[in-house]
Amino acid sequence: MDKPTIDFWISIGSTYSYLSVMRIEQVAKATGIDFRWRPFSVRAIMIEQNNVPFRGKPVKMNYMWRDIERRAQLYNLPARLPAPYPLSEFDLANKVAIVGEDFDWGKAYIQATYRRWFQNGEEAGLEPNLSESLREAGQRPEAIIEQARSEAVERRYQQATQHAKSSGIFGSPTFVVNGEVFWGDDRLEDAISWLRHGRIEPG
Amino acid sequence: MDKPTIDFWISIGSTYSYLSVMRIEQVAKATGIDFRWRPFSVRAIMIEQNNVPFRGKPVKMNYMWRDIERRAQLYNLPARLPAPYPLSEFDLANKVAIVGEDFDWGKAYIQATYRRWFQNGEEAGLEPNLSESLREAGQRPEAIIEQARSEAVERRYQQATQHAKSSGIFGSPTFVVNGEVFWGDDRLEDAISWLRHGRIEPG
Repeated sequence: MDKPTIDFWISIGSTYSYLSVMRIEQVAKATGIDFRWRPFSVRAIMIEQNNVPFRGKPVKMNYMWRDIERRAQLYNLPARLPAPYPLSEFDLANKVAIVGEDFDWGKAYIQATYRRWFQNGEEAGLEPNLSESLREAGQRPEAIIEQARSEAVERRYQQATQHAKSSGIFGSPTFVVNGEVFWGDDRLEDAISWLRHGRIEPG
Repeated sequence: MDKPTIDFWISIGSTYSYLSVMRIEQVAKATGIDFRWRPFSVRAIMIEQNNVPFRGKPVKMNYMWRDIERRAQLYNLPARLPAPYPLSEFDLANKVAIVGEDFDWGKAYIQATYRRWFQNGEEAGLEPNLSESLREAGQRPEAIIEQARSEAVERRYQQATQHAKSSGIFGSPTFVVNGEVFWGDDRLEDAISWLRHGRIEPG
């Protein structure tokens, strides 16, 4: 009775995650795979592991935007780049996702957040993005944001991040299939292949 | 009369470059594309840009080896991992490639170097890898290594690196198509698509 499942570890604030967040529902439909969205703090892990990807690295940062622009075009996704980066309210954006983790509105909130961030230039985690994305997801912003600021959610956020870290995750998006870690939107197809065949097969 | 051409910027010492070095001739045959192999010092650029990928980042380093192992299997390439890393004679390995840049033996030397490094565990740039790879490529090691240590070759190496840097290159392998930069073995297909269609198309 269990549908095949891939854990989709996602931190709002990661740029390449835009591609996965926007295409993964379609991939789920096409493949019959269930993706379990798991918000966490990639920033905490990156700081701890001295693995900050773009800050102070302008050449690599410029390349990242161009690479995302080309790949967004591949997936027929609009993109107004560069999007505001890095996020000033990274943790709040992700703690709201933690509140919604076990509900369908959690995904809808993350999708709306990325759409506003990458298509309209509204920074994720700030107003108007934060409240409007919650409204789009059918939630009352004030209530959810208050919950997101609670100690209970802080604890869940830290636990999720600890779980990610102990799974060998150091970036977002990351896909985990039977303990096998695949980092990056460009490894989504590898993860699917791994689930089906236990190895990567030609696409 | 010109064959379509992609610049293939390669630094011996880069781990993911193993995949490109070993599969690119087959890709060239299958596509009719001419790849121009261009050795340079990715290390000099990475140090200057504060963009060192794996040193002091054990989690990311472990992931890199596993990712290469899975992708080597995809391409039917044997791999004994982790291979010795980083290289103690990085520059010498690449300066020998500079000596061979305009000759067919230059490619053969790089291929032999990577094969010995990733399949036999012989560190690139050190003996026996260095001399044996040159012999496999049909060269007399002593003469070539002496030339590689000359000031003329040091100058060409620095010029190649400067050229790479001014093209926006910060990693190896990098593919350049009409000024468009594609970084990583996993972007080779994007580069080919760009050459053919001026955009990335589904694979």
